Parts: sequence; structure tokens; C-alpha cells
Amino acid sequence: MGGEFKPWGWGSAGEQYSRPRLDRLLRHLRARGIEGREAQAAPALPSAPASRLTQEDLEALGEIAEVRTEEEDRIAHSVGKSYLDLLAFRVGLPLEVTDAVARPSNVEDVRQVVAWAVDEGIALIPFGGGTSVLGGLRPLRGNHRAVVTVDLRRLNRVLEIDETSLLVVAQAGILGPELEKMLQARGFTLGHYPQSFHFSSLGGWIATRSSGHLSGKYGRIEDMVQALRLITPEGEIETRSVPARSTGPEFREMILGSEGFLGIIVEAVLRIHRKPEATERRVVLFPDFPGATEVCRQMVQAGIVPALVRIADEEEAATILAVAGQEVEDVPSLVLLGFEGPGSEVESGMQRALDHWTERGGMELDSEAAALWEEEYYRTPYLRDELMDRGFLVETLETAAGWSALRNLYRDVRGALHNVFAEHGIEGLVLCHLSHAYRDGASLYFTVLGSQLRGHEAAQWGVLKEAAMKAIFRWGTLSHHHGIGLDHRAWMREEHGEAALKALAGLKKALDPSGIMNPGKLLEEER
Amino acid sequence: MGGEFKPWGWGSAGEQYSRPRLDRLLRHLRARGIEGREAQAAPALPSAPASRLTQEDLEALGEIAEVRTEEEDRIAHSVGKSYLDLLAFRVGLPLEVTDAVARPSNVEDVRQVVAWAVDEGIALIPFGGGTSVLGGLRPLRGNHRAVVTVDLRRLNRVLEIDETSLLVVAQAGILGPELEKMLQARGFTLGHYPQSFHFSSLGGWIATRSSGHLSGKYGRIEDMVQALRLITPEGEIETRSVPARSTGPEFREMILGSEGFLGIIVEAVLRIHRKPEATERRVVLFPDFPGATEVCRQMVQAGIVPALVRIADEEEAATILAVAGQEVEDVPSLVLLGFEGPGSEVESGMQRALDHWTERGGMELDSEAAALWEEEYYRTPYLRDELMDRGFLVETLETAAGWSALRNLYRDVRGALHNVFAEHGIEGLVLCHLSHAYRDGASLYFTVLGSQLRGHEAAQWGVLKEAAMKAIFRWGTLSHHHGIGLDHRAWMREEHGEAALKALAGLKKALDPSGIMNPGKLLEEER
Repeated sequence: MGGEFKPWGWGSAGEQYSRPRLDRLLRHLRARGIEGREAQAAPALPSAPASRLTQEDLEALGEIAEVRTEEEDRIAHSVGKSYLDLLAFRVGLPLEVTDAVARPSNVEDVRQVVAWAVDEGIALIPFGGGTSVLGGLRPLRGNHRAVVTVDLRRLNRVLEIDETSLLVVAQAGILGPELEKMLQARGFTLGHYPQSFHFSSLGGWIATRSSGHLSGKYGRIEDMVQALRLITPEGEIETRSVPARSTGPEFREMILGSEGFLGIIVEAVLRIHRKPEATERRVVLFPDFPGATEVCRQMVQAGIVPALVRIADEEEAATILAVAGQEVEDVPSLVLLGFEGPGSEVESGMQRALDHWTERGGMELDSEAAALWEEEYYRTPYLRDELMDRGFLVETLETAAGWSALRNLYRDVRGALHNVFAEHGIEGLVLCHLSHAYRDGASLYFTVLGSQLRGHEAAQWGVLKEAAMKAIFRWGTLSHHHGIGLDHRAWMREEHGEAALKALAGLKKALDPSGIMNPGKLLEEER
Repeated sequence: MGGEFKPWGWGSAGEQYSRPRLDRLLRHLRARGIEGREAQAAPALPSAPASRLTQEDLEALGEIAEVRTEEEDRIAHSVGKSYLDLLAFRVGLPLEVTDAVARPSNVEDVRQVVAWAVDEGIALIPFGGGTSVLGGLRPLRGNHRAVVTVDLRRLNRVLEIDETSLLVVAQAGILGPELEKMLQARGFTLGHYPQSFHFSSLGGWIATRSSGHLSGKYGRIEDMVQALRLITPEGEIETRSVPARSTGPEFREMILGSEGFLGIIVEAVLRIHRKPEATERRVVLFPDFPGATEVCRQMVQAGIVPALVRIADEEEAATILAVAGQEVEDVPSLVLLGFEGPGSEVESGMQRALDHWTERGGMELDSEAAALWEEEYYRTPYLRDELMDRGFLVETLETAAGWSALRNLYRDVRGALHNVFAEHGIEGLVLCHLSHAYRDGASLYFTVLGSQLRGHEAAQWGVLKEAAMKAIFRWGTLSHHHGIGLDHRAWMREEHGEAALKALAGLKKALDPSGIMNPGKLLEEER
């Protein structure tokens, strides 16, 4: 993968989602009354307003770092990959465009860009791989006179691999494949594989508290990050590289999830693992989704913890099978299990897991079904582009809750979304899978498909999102691994409460008193 | 244990350290030139200055919560169990005494006490079990007219056990044994066993980021705490009870380690485990300590992770054996291994661990040696009292570092302490054990024994502490599990750097603008 960047869709311009699979999905949707329209050609870039930066600004900034002001670059750095981002190109929603893109090549450059922005009162938006699915890269400028996006892609070096302590020190702009390549060449892996893996950056993973599909073995990014460096307007925070400490509130955990609003993450120390000797994936069929989540709970709580566990509900399983060309009646829930590590451990772990499932009514499929899954996992975002080009609404929502709340969460979110579709007189499809399992709970990941309400595409999305969020808040959290960005910002108060937001504002004010860092993110208003 | 409280020493007044063991230790020290003096009688309580609270204050506070103003209560709530705390009673160091002790009985009481203190400009010191070993309970009052210690012991209820999600909701004032008793009656355990277990509280564990000796299986307190409630002067923070989330900087991690300086922790949701079916402890002898730490690293990194692993260096092993009455020549390093959980897992885990050690030169001892260890672990703090009564300096220091730094850390801390003893012309003994092992590093725990410098006891301690800290900062962290309190406060800047302390001050200001919460803790000066 890699290659030419396209702002209006996923990944590389050269990549195409499989046409036969797409056609089968369209047929599956049509059979459920969900209609699109003729595919639009790739959207043309809108024209960007003139940069607000003066010639003097550009010269001063250009002395610190490479600067790009071409319209195409500015637009490409003003959006991520959220539904609203991609919709903006297709239905002409208004788009704030960044005034310039700065490309520092080292930490000292970053420090100087921040100092310059403070002096000049210019807002800065850190930019890694550009894959935010929540509007996190939109260049708001608050009350500042201009806004510069800081593209960190040139800070992509691996600085050190400590084979004794199993740690890697890497710069924040490195992308998933670059980092894994360097590690694997030395016999190691980080094991962080979010769906955006090929295009997202280390800094982005940290800034949004992301989680990959192998988190059962390797943990979430916050488990991997041992130490961090953050450049703020008030100086640098470099947390100490030690395995654990009891030295007051943990700064590392204040920087994780800070989404660029405290400063720019430039470097991290990460816990690494030996490259797994063996990798196994298996698929199990289980009669029903709520029952499957219960068996999953028992599995994890019994100490059988796969690297990967995903459970598709009946609707999602039916869609997966339809897209794969297998029309099956009475589709059950699909359970994907993955183990990796030393050969003997993988074998015994998988055997224990399969025994656990089959003893409780699961049926093992042959392992080919599983082999296809991982490739498809990374290719699904391309499918979204195809669907949006054809006038479909397609959005994903994710949350997490305790095991004792999971059934209610599942019922209420699905119910809320179907209610909105019904109120709009539109057929909709809500798919769900359990994506990460913990001893105390799990995350649910919903995919929402329907026809767009022509002329009201953004409003339709807003109503669906709000309905889902209200249902989510009865049982779960605002986000399990996508983050906040703009799309979740309005719910920060509901998630955390008033006093916590005061604390967040206090933190912001202490490190960024003039509010130049990613203004309007995480917190809605100036405080 | 339990029983009458004594401010000048550990635990219950009725408990006594074994006399034969004490005598053997004194002989062991004498053989190394470390002399004490005749035991002093139990120190008399100093007299406390009059309370600064007016009759009106006391009436207003008394309407909210039970208030105690007796001299004995005030003094007992003005110290913890640090060397300087205990020294204060023995050599007459000046002691700030709290003006009253408030004993709220529920969360609403706490809220009202905080509101009253804000209105009246009175400082509050949260107090749980009173076992801080770093001066964390000293009642500084900053620029406030008086100070009240808030004893949380009456908030000691278990509110809910969720057997599906494996969570317990408990109030912060509950002590270790109370919580474990409630859990074990239902077939569960939290598994948090710091050395202070019998006397320390849930709130204290959280406020200081503590860690118990079984952390290899059950984690540190920050791994156990799933959600928290904190009452601050600016309102309540209740973090959401979910297994994981990506909703900005994590507030739970700002409250963990906050040592009462942001507000009062009143409740927590904790991850629990089924009560282990089996429990195994074994001791292995290994020729040398640095070699043993290396074998330990390989073990943990190979995925063999005991619930408990402790490795005593040669000096500590010799002392342990001498106290137990076993004079052995050429004492090697002692390795204690513990597993717990389902019977078959414990058996196979222990076998793998023992194989790992014996294949690398370790020699297994019979299991009786291990059985004694856990009881002695909890009784050692009583020994400290006996030694201090006899004019010995006895202090513990703990830190953590990456595996690649561990040998240097060990060498430098020992070297620094021995240098100070030599400069003072005093014989000293420095014992060390590895106390917690992680994939990326480990903690080292030093016990320092020597004769006191008569008339300069506190200054002697200060010079030793400073020398050790300088050595620690070359490789590790200020504290692995004791926290900050007063004794570590001066090193917060060195640990975290200037920008981080600004962030901490910002957090403090946002939640406690008038600075009434535990003033002068974590941060030295007003900012």
C-alpha cells in the first residue's frame, strides 16, 4: 500500500476495492431496500481561500521548516477520514482550510515552530497520518489570526532499540509499516495494528489512545507507551523511561489522548515483543450474538486470552458472508480467534479456546475463512469510499462497557439507530461486532449503512449520531479507540462531568496559555 | 492484627517483634560494627499546641461530621510512619499538629466538609490508614488559618460486587483486611498486598500509587482501579466505569498518585479475581545478585510471570538467614517465587519457573523456607520500631529502572550510601532486593541500617537520602511504590521537569483554586 494521497477517500489513490465484492454488497443492500445511486466520479478539490499568512510569516516559518502553501496540500491537510470529512468533498460542505503546512524535520524544528506560533499568535494543528475518523484534523483557529498544520511525517526515525529492556525509541511521525519494518528486521514487533495501520502514525496513535486488533496480546497504545516527549508552548515534558513509578499523577496519561491540544508529541519509548514464532487464526460459528459475548466473557475471565477476538453479530455475519459470495440462510454469529507467540503456546492457547467454544455450542470452521479476514480488515475503509460515491450513508460507532451492561448496550444502540431510520422513512442496516475483550468488559463496534437523505446528508448523520450517543451513554463510554476530534467534542461533558473538564482546561492553560495548540479540540469553548 | 493505635510506631500497640529474632539481628549488626544503645521506653506523646480552630469553627464542622480535638487524636493524625515521623517522637523534632480530626461517615459529609473548608479558608489533609512512609500526612497548612485532618475510616463500606464484570465498588476508607474479608466471603480477591496491608486504606493505596508483592499477577493499584470518585473544591469527578476508553487525557490517572492535593478520593471501582484455588511459594538459591536479576529478566520476558518474585542480594540474604538463626558462610542470593490461581496453572507455572532457574545455576530449597517469608514480610515494620528505640538508623529506599540500567543502579546506590557512612565514620549496612519485575525493568528496594549520629539524627538521614537520590536519578525513578509525601517533594522537579510541574500546578489550580487541599504536598511552593 502507500502511494499517492487522496484527501476525499481512504489510503492510496491507486488502490481499488474489489469490484465483485462491492457488487455483492450492493446486491445485499438492495435486497434490504437500501438503494444508492450511480457512482459519482472522484470529487474535484474545492478551491481554498487565500492563506491568511503574510509573506513575512511565510519567510519566518520557512527559515525553521519546509513550508507548503499549494492549495492541494492545504486542503489535503485540512481533513481526515471522518464521514463528514469525506462528505464535504461529495456534497460541498463548507471546509476550513489551513493557511500553510509546515514540515519540520527534527525535534528542534518543532520547538522553534511552536515558539514562532506563540510569538505570532498563530494556531497549530499537529498532523501525522491524517486518518482521524472524527474530524480531529480540521484546522480551527479559535481567536488566532491564522492556522498552520504541522505535518510530522519527516520525524520518522527509529532512534534506538534496547534489546535488553525490550524498548524502542521512535519519532512520532513514523507510520505503522515503517516502524514494524525496522522492528521486524531486528526480530521484534510492536504489535499495534489498528485498521488505519498502513497510513497512521505513532504520534497519532498516542494522541488518540488508539487500539489495534491484537490488543489482547500486545495491549492498547497506552500499555505500549512507556515514556513520551511532548513539546508545549511552556516547554518540554519528557516523562522518565522506567517500567512503573509512584511519583504523583502520571503525566504520560495526560499526554496520551491529548489530541494535539497540549502540545506536539515528538517521540515515544515503546514496549516491544519478540516477533511471534507462530500465528494462528480460527473461525467459530455460534448460534447467537448475545450468547457468544457471554461465552467470550467466560473465556477471558478463565484466563484464555487470545491476541485477537472479534465476534460479528448475525447482521454483520450475514453481510460478511454475502460480500464473500456465500449466501447462507440463518446466519449465526461469527467468532474470530487469533493467537500468536511461541509455537507451543499458540497451539495450546488456541486449543483451549476452541475447546471452550465448542463445549458451549460453537462450531469450528476450517481455517481458510480466518485467513481472508485480516486482509479484508485493512481493505474495508476503501469500500466506504465506494459506498459514499454511490450515495450511501456509512458510518462506524464504537464504545465499551462492562460485561454486565453489554446486552443492554447492544439492544439500545441498535434500537436507537433503527428508530431514526424508521423516522426518516429510510431502510437502514446496523451491523455490530465485539472488537476487544477485557476481563471487566468489551468494546462494541457498530457499522451503520443506509441510503443518504438527499440534501440533508450531514443533518441525517447528526440525528443518527445523537440517537446512538444517547443510547451509548446509558451503558458505555463515548469512545473506546477512535478518540474525540470534532464529532465527539459536544459529548465530553456527558462523558467526564463538569469538574473534570475544569481540570482539563486547567491543564491546557498551564501548558498552552495562549491557546494556540489545536484550538477548539477536546474542549468546546474557551474557559 | 489491629488493636490500639500508636503514633510512634508501626501497627498495633499490643504487637511485639520476636525477641529471639531481634537479638540475632542485633548480634549480626554488632558483628559488622553497627552498635545501638539501650532500648528507650516507648516515647511519651509531646504536648500539642492549642487548636487554631475557634469554638464557632468546631461547632460548624461538628454539624457536618464527628470531630475530635483531643491532643492524642490530633497528634496521632499528624504523622505517618516515615523515619522522620518516628524519629520526631524519639529525639523531639518539632511537629506540626493538626487542629482537629473530622470523621465523615459518608460521601455527602465529605462534600460538606470540603465546602466548609473552602468557605472558611481551612486546609484539609485526607487520612486513611496513616501508614505513609514519606511524611505524606504531615499537616502543613500553607497560608491558611488552620488545618483539619479528614479521617476517612468511617467510609469503609463495600457498595457492590459485580460478579459478571468482576468488579467491586468500595469506599476509600476501607482497610486491606476489611476489603479482602468481604471479597473472600464471596469467593473473590483484590490481590493487593503492600507491606502495610493490615493498616492501610484503599484511598491511601490509590492516592500514592501503591503496589503489593503479588503485583505480577494482580497488577499495581493503577491496574486494579477501573474508576474513581474524587470530591474537589470545584466539584466531583466520577470517572466512567468502563474497561477502556479513548476520550482524551485519562482523569483516573490524574487522581491516582494525587496524594490528597486535588481533593478527597471517596470511592473506587476495582477489578477483582476469583480467590486462587492454589498458592505456591518456593525459594531458589543463586550464586550472585546481578546474575540473578539477569535470570529474572529472561524469565519474565519469556512469558513466565510469577505473581511474586523477590530476589535478595547477598547482604540481604545473609541478614535474613542470620535473623532466622541460620549462620551460613558464603551466602548466595535468595530468590523467592510465588504463583497463585487454578491448581494446574500454578503447578505448571512454578515448574517452568523452577526449571528456568535451575537450568541457569539456581538451586531449589525445600519449600519451608518460603512459607515463613510472608508472615515475616508483614512483621518487619515492627522490627524497625525496636531498632529505632535502640538508636539505629533504619530506612528503606525504593526505585525502578529499565533492565539495561539495573546493574548500574544497584552499584551506584550502594556505593553512594556506603560513601556517606564512611564519611561519617560510621559502619553501615545496605541490603537490597529486587521487589517487582516487569518485561521492561524492575524495582530495587534498599534497606539502610547503621548507628545513628547522636544529636544529628535527622541531618544524617538527609545526607544519606540525598546521596541515594543522586545515584537513583542517574538510572531510575524517584519512587516505584512509596509515593512523594514530604520526603520526596524536593525531587519532583528532577523527576518530572519544569513543564510537567507547571501542568501539575495548573491541574491543582483548576480543582482547588484556594489551595486548601493538602497544601505543600507534591509541589513545594505556591505557583
